[in-house]
Amino acid sequence: MEFEGRDITSIEDFTREEIDHILKTAKIMEPIAAKGSDLLHGKILANIFFEPSTRTRLSFEAAMLKLGGNAIGFADAENTSVKKGENLADTIRTVENYADIIALRHPLEGAAKLAAEFAKIPIINAGSGAEEHPTQAFVDLYTIQKEKGKIDGLKIALIGDLRYGRTVHSLAYALSFYNIELTLVSPESLRIRREVLHAIQNKIPVSETQNLEKTLAQTDVLYVTRIQKERFPDQAEYAKVKGIYRIDLKTLANTKKDLTILHPLPRIDEIAPEVDATPQACYFQQVHNGVLVRMALLALVLGSVK
Amino acid sequence: MEFEGRDITSIEDFTREEIDHILKTAKIMEPIAAKGSDLLHGKILANIFFEPSTRTRLSFEAAMLKLGGNAIGFADAENTSVKKGENLADTIRTVENYADIIALRHPLEGAAKLAAEFAKIPIINAGSGAEEHPTQAFVDLYTIQKEKGKIDGLKIALIGDLRYGRTVHSLAYALSFYNIELTLVSPESLRIRREVLHAIQNKIPVSETQNLEKTLAQTDVLYVTRIQKERFPDQAEYAKVKGIYRIDLKTLANTKKDLTILHPLPRIDEIAPEVDATPQACYFQQVHNGVLVRMALLALVLGSVK
Amino acid sequence: MEFEGRDITSIEDFTREEIDHILKTAKIMEPIAAKGSDLLHGKILANIFFEPSTRTRLSFEAAMLKLGGNAIGFADAENTSVKKGENLADTIRTVENYADIIALRHPLEGAAKLAAEFAKIPIINAGSGAEEHPTQAFVDLYTIQKEKGKIDGLKIALIGDLRYGRTVHSLAYALSFYNIELTLVSPESLRIRREVLHAIQNKIPVSETQNLEKTLAQTDVLYVTRIQKERFPDQAEYAKVKGIYRIDLKTLANTKKDLTILHPLPRIDEIAPEVDATPQACYFQQVHNGVLVRMALLALVLGSVK
Repeated sequence: MEFEGRDITSIEDFTREEIDHILKTAKIMEPIAAKGSDLLHGKILANIFFEPSTRTRLSFEAAMLKLGGNAIGFADAENTSVKKGENLADTIRTVENYADIIALRHPLEGAAKLAAEFAKIPIINAGSGAEEHPTQAFVDLYTIQKEKGKIDGLKIALIGDLRYGRTVHSLAYALSFYNIELTLVSPESLRIRREVLHAIQNKIPVSETQNLEKTLAQTDVLYVTRIQKERFPDQAEYAKVKGIYRIDLKTLANTKKDLTILHPLPRIDEIAPEVDATPQACYFQQVHNGVLVRMALLALVLGSVK
Repeated sequence: MEFEGRDITSIEDFTREEIDHILKTAKIMEPIAAKGSDLLHGKILANIFFEPSTRTRLSFEAAMLKLGGNAIGFADAENTSVKKGENLADTIRTVENYADIIALRHPLEGAAKLAAEFAKIPIINAGSGAEEHPTQAFVDLYTIQKEKGKIDGLKIALIGDLRYGRTVHSLAYALSFYNIELTLVSPESLRIRREVLHAIQNKIPVSETQNLEKTLAQTDVLYVTRIQKERFPDQAEYAKVKGIYRIDLKTLANTKKDLTILHPLPRIDEIAPEVDATPQACYFQQVHNGVLVRMALLALVLGSVK
Repeated sequence: MEFEGRDITSIEDFTREEIDHILKTAKIMEPIAAKGSDLLHGKILANIFFEPSTRTRLSFEAAMLKLGGNAIGFADAENTSVKKGENLADTIRTVENYADIIALRHPLEGAAKLAAEFAKIPIINAGSGAEEHPTQAFVDLYTIQKEKGKIDGLKIALIGDLRYGRTVHSLAYALSFYNIELTLVSPESLRIRREVLHAIQNKIPVSETQNLEKTLAQTDVLYVTRIQKERFPDQAEYAKVKGIYRIDLKTLANTKKDLTILHPLPRIDEIAPEVDATPQACYFQQVHNGVLVRMALLALVLGSVK
């Protein structure tokens, strides 16, 4: 199992053994995150973000700083050479001269893979279009394992926008390595992409439904997603499904007591603020875990841990 | 007197003894600022700026770096999750996972206090609406003390926009701890808020006037402010008062020789460039002192100095 | 020869001896760039960029980090005090309190010189209007010397936008210190500025032509530039010359085998992607060298190397 120098562009490039090793490494990072370290002293991460992000960008930066490295980059394409017409391949072949590793967020699917083809240094996909967000999937797995003590054997439901949500695609692939039962809850127009469904159906039992209520009672982990206005080609379509599922205290009355609620954030109104204080709410722990997992990935890919 | 872990959201939360301690700590930072240090090695400041700022943001970053720490964050809400509809409480509960302390600038009054309620880590108010800018007030006090050798006993005039200027509110509160005489010079439409006036009138002699000339001869410290176009609800109102007070060499002819002129900057035309070279002009020293005071605040709140 | 504390605003302020010393120092930086160092530990660079840039800003940041220093600043004037009406002199006299050195990019010619007049700390011109980009010229010279083993004796052609391209002006001045033959290839409307031509004609043989083909066979170094849409006052004029020169594999058939192709990047379509894989293409090496040269400049001006 070799991580040094590898690109992290898609969940599909990993084996279960490798994923478990990433989760194990993230656990090792817990005390390091609290105290800081010099593991990546002198190393530079370039955050190349062509789309808005608070969470992922700052999470990568915090991870790099906690390992003793540094981060440079841009948070938006407006003030870059891209505005002058530069293509992604050239941007990558430029930025790789400034850094040891690149975290790339891009609105187009396939962007991270294209970048990885051109780059001499490792590329981490920090979100590409509606397609993939592999580091978030590792964060989600880590959080499930931490909260539940295991992943195998769980009943997990993904709800909301399963079509445009890139975290959902990566997570669904990732979960299919484990021995779980998956329920996909979404309105008809936001059902998961057929190619994702087919890929995971061969590996784990999957059911699709529009009915959240029926699903709740059996579920161990409820993964809620925002219905992403900005990804809808047709805003009338958005208006129809906006707010269709909302988790509040009333919803929780019908669930298992030890339910774990996750959300990749940001959330708008799909989880009521009253839920935040319940022990079921684990979405801010997810944010905390995000730093640990990204520390693990950076340290593995840059070869400072094995 | 305990600073570790405290929020700095309002001048009103501090006693005179505490303020004096902050000023004393800022003085200790002078040689450290010149040489650098590792006092905050491994610590991360998150600058969360929802409004434009050069000075305050870079001042906090420089302060953190000079103490051996690091800074992350955003300089504008455009490229953040806020654009996706995230509320401030969620942004704070996210960012606190990436940092040890947050400096927050926000266009709404009360934002810093709300943030402090939700955050587990200390919040420093780096400007909230037209209401408060406590770190600037500490900088102003430090500069007065450094230039004059004392604060007690001085005649201080605040001029310009006393209504929308958040630095003015924080400074007026801060000055009311000292034994000074305060004159407030502004056009009628920009008089200081009544609640600020009432709060400080109980503690120090305060007079209000529209006439700058009469005030000048008695004044030891002249605190000039920009009339802030961007805070006027009605731009016609702005046009009426724009440029109403302007300090130039002719103005200085009628003042005390050892007058100290301060300005929180940026300035537009309320102080003529010809004044910059006079010994009275201390506004760029204020900028320099800003780093020292913010170093003191960061070190105190993060517990690396007592 | 003294570099400590100097401004780097124009190529014309340097002697050949000094330029050679900068190139020699850049060479010393090669192993340091690979391993990192603490030469500038505790030092802060402020990147003050009033215009879009990926390359130059990140190149300076990477250079500073590889020397153990830190970088702060802004990548765009939108979220700064400039938006509130602050003038450049005030911005500089503010930012100099946060940093040890400033790299300034500004849309106006003369901006770097103005900044240097007001600043107490060194200013590096990171591009001022269509006028000067001295650090890029040093990068270009370093790349030529590295690729060719020398600069003297070469036949060098600059092609494309020689009128608005600031890198061209700085490079033409820089090359005139060496014993080279210069050919300037451009459409009539984009001929090099007369004052630049006159200045260099006294020192080296210069010919102007619109005909790229005839030039190619004799050329050792082909310096290609982008025709910069954003600098044309008249977009109809841009449309006429857009795409007028394009280097592709067919073009290369008529050149010397050991031709070196340079480009300051970003490129649009003036060099076909098929050229990237040829040994003649050295424009991504230029990017790599950019970090070395900026490391040299920062270390020299901040006095940590002689």
